[in-house]
Amino acid sequence: MTESTGGSRDQGRELEKMKGNLIVGQSGGPTAVINSSLAGVIKAARKAGIKRVYGMHYGIEGFLQEDIIDLDEYFTTSHDLSMLKRTPSAFLGTCRYKLPAVEGHEDVYEKIFEILDKYNIEFFLYNGGNDSMDTIKMLSDYAAAHGKKQKFMGIPKTIDNDLPMTDHCPGYGSSAKYIATSMKEIIRDNESYGVSKPTICIVEIMGRHAGWLTATAALSKDVDCSGPDLIYLPEVPFDINSFVDKIRELAKVKKSVVVAVSEGLKTADGKFVCELGTVNDHVDAFGHKQLAGTAAYLANVVTQETGLKSRYIEFSSLQRCAAHLASRTDADEAYNVGFLAAKAAFEGHSGMMIAIEVKSREPYIVEYDMYDIHGIANVERKVPKNWITNGGTFVSDEYLDYVRPLIMGSLQPYTAAGVPIHMTLAKKKKRSSK
Amino acid sequence: MTESTGGSRDQGRELEKMKGNLIVGQSGGPTAVINSSLAGVIKAARKAGIKRVYGMHYGIEGFLQEDIIDLDEYFTTSHDLSMLKRTPSAFLGTCRYKLPAVEGHEDVYEKIFEILDKYNIEFFLYNGGNDSMDTIKMLSDYAAAHGKKQKFMGIPKTIDNDLPMTDHCPGYGSSAKYIATSMKEIIRDNESYGVSKPTICIVEIMGRHAGWLTATAALSKDVDCSGPDLIYLPEVPFDINSFVDKIRELAKVKKSVVVAVSEGLKTADGKFVCELGTVNDHVDAFGHKQLAGTAAYLANVVTQETGLKSRYIEFSSLQRCAAHLASRTDADEAYNVGFLAAKAAFEGHSGMMIAIEVKSREPYIVEYDMYDIHGIANVERKVPKNWITNGGTFVSDEYLDYVRPLIMGSLQPYTAAGVPIHMTLAKKKKRSSK
Repeated sequence: MTESTGGSRDQGRELEKMKGNLIVGQSGGPTAVINSSLAGVIKAARKAGIKRVYGMHYGIEGFLQEDIIDLDEYFTTSHDLSMLKRTPSAFLGTCRYKLPAVEGHEDVYEKIFEILDKYNIEFFLYNGGNDSMDTIKMLSDYAAAHGKKQKFMGIPKTIDNDLPMTDHCPGYGSSAKYIATSMKEIIRDNESYGVSKPTICIVEIMGRHAGWLTATAALSKDVDCSGPDLIYLPEVPFDINSFVDKIRELAKVKKSVVVAVSEGLKTADGKFVCELGTVNDHVDAFGHKQLAGTAAYLANVVTQETGLKSRYIEFSSLQRCAAHLASRTDADEAYNVGFLAAKAAFEGHSGMMIAIEVKSREPYIVEYDMYDIHGIANVERKVPKNWITNGGTFVSDEYLDYVRPLIMGSLQPYTAAGVPIHMTLAKKKKRSSK
Repeated sequence: MTESTGGSRDQGRELEKMKGNLIVGQSGGPTAVINSSLAGVIKAARKAGIKRVYGMHYGIEGFLQEDIIDLDEYFTTSHDLSMLKRTPSAFLGTCRYKLPAVEGHEDVYEKIFEILDKYNIEFFLYNGGNDSMDTIKMLSDYAAAHGKKQKFMGIPKTIDNDLPMTDHCPGYGSSAKYIATSMKEIIRDNESYGVSKPTICIVEIMGRHAGWLTATAALSKDVDCSGPDLIYLPEVPFDINSFVDKIRELAKVKKSVVVAVSEGLKTADGKFVCELGTVNDHVDAFGHKQLAGTAAYLANVVTQETGLKSRYIEFSSLQRCAAHLASRTDADEAYNVGFLAAKAAFEGHSGMMIAIEVKSREPYIVEYDMYDIHGIANVERKVPKNWITNGGTFVSDEYLDYVRPLIMGSLQPYTAAGVPIHMTLAKKKKRSSK
């Protein structure tokens, strides 16, 4: 299946057969381009002549409470969809909710299909990561087993980039662009000082189990920037002593040392580094337990062990919501997987996820395919070991060739009075009454 | 004195008299547009026919070690200056160094003027905040008292916006644009969740003594964004109990509560909030003292006291180095104050700082003036009390009218392979050998 944004002659005939409505939900952590996928779904539905396009408010969790939005109320002009594409975070609201096993919870599934029937919904699109694809698996399996007419399609999305089958995940490229840009600016900032003691700066990047996001820090390296001196991914067990030794050596020859660390770093015995600082459940004078992140903890360790000046930076949710640094490539691909998931559902497919297939990295050429959801749901893809170099402290050129095309181009936000403007549900929110 | 970017007929005559060279230094915390001021100085020097333009490597601290850069080696084309303007952080390197009192430290001053004479430097430009202006004061006073020929001029710069005499400080507008944009994206992100418990997000913003930067969080408020629910500035003593009560009330009516706090919040008895978490010098199992910032501490307090889900975000150095979100207005003004400071020195002025005077906020019209450095050095300007509203938890419309023009327009970075590219000293660094 190849990318197609135009209509086809077959669509006219498809239309004849389609009577049902469509519902789309967003699930898991938001991204800068998750709403581009939503825009793609809406556009595909309009093209196919779907009567009503609904949105789940707060994903399947809200759907179970019949919290359903009529999206036709929001998107009447092409401007609306353009603005939606430039709006970060989940326009519909999101959730972290896993459907229970069917056995013993038949009532949950019956309720879901009751609501679907009530709104005459035939097409169910769900946009998320590994956990969210589980929802598509459970529902499509249930539908097949119970002779339900509904079609369920998954739309990939995660800044963690850890979905299998797809070359990469929509959302990853924009986070990568944010991290590469910010990392470069941080390195310049850290290099500003340096007459006397060197400054060690530890930057914490998201990714509990996979180091895809942390690896993007290497994109800041170029002729005008030394890049991070060390990059630590969760795929490699973290050794604090070796880390401190490396910092000590670097500080002998550099005034500015910048290190990228994944929030999910673990020691060889399986403990999260971020939990090492609180092993004894210390509380402060007010009885509050003090929690420190991985970077905060490591910066503290560096100063205590070496006497060097250190600081830490956490990109926190900025790395997933900075739509002002969205990658155009990423936004376009997010739109396409949304569009194509809807189109596939209209064509009768169910229990599948759209995937991106890279035919060529230079020039960058992609095609789209779809895969059985059973090989995707709950599976995590990690950074290949052979892409992790320098004894687990950097990434290879092969990785950089892989990631570079994903941050190309930019989708500039619309602005008013110097600040980006967004589409919001609150602005003209109307609940559907069927 | 009004803005002038063109040459004047008088400059030809000035040139006749000028034989000396120029040196420029950057000092204190870097900003996204500090290098625009440097570009302004270089351009003014070229226009005036100054023979050589030197830079201090790491400010006056490096200068004292005769660490001097020949800037003519770096900037040969107009492209170079355009790129410099788009490069964040101190291109020359910076320092935090205060000159000692003359009495008892005559050797320091003699050394400075020896170096100045050695390089035939007649014009000394220094770009920084309150502390940095002290350097201009000390040196111009010394020059006047000892009949030295050199002219010393100050160029304002600080994201803290706390310099007196000038309407606002170059650097502030770009940080404001970064904070307004990021705050809006964070609020959208925080609103994504919310089927079950509300999420409280505390965002920490720089400014130890003045709340100018924290106040910019209010710029995110518009028809499409509720803005931060509370804004706490260091100008108002912080009451933790009242803060927790307000969060509790907000969480009854809102699923997403976002609060902006200054890193410099102090309780009524003068203690920094960020130090409350460590009053008992708790150390972890490794003997490391755990430090938490203001927002981290408050997020912790919220969860402990209310059971609500909380998280914190620190903008850290991102808020001062995010050149990818530079304000065009800010960058232009930074350029102009640099240019005009040099021009004023050529005209014989010394011991002064260039200031921005806003003739009209709408339409936005500025003029430039200069003020005696004695009324500026070491003086901190705070946010006026009458601009702080809602019992110390928000800012007034008057403040918003004040700040809005400063974030208008954008100075887009040059990019390669999807990432901004910068001018760096390392790239073709040549030390001057006189």
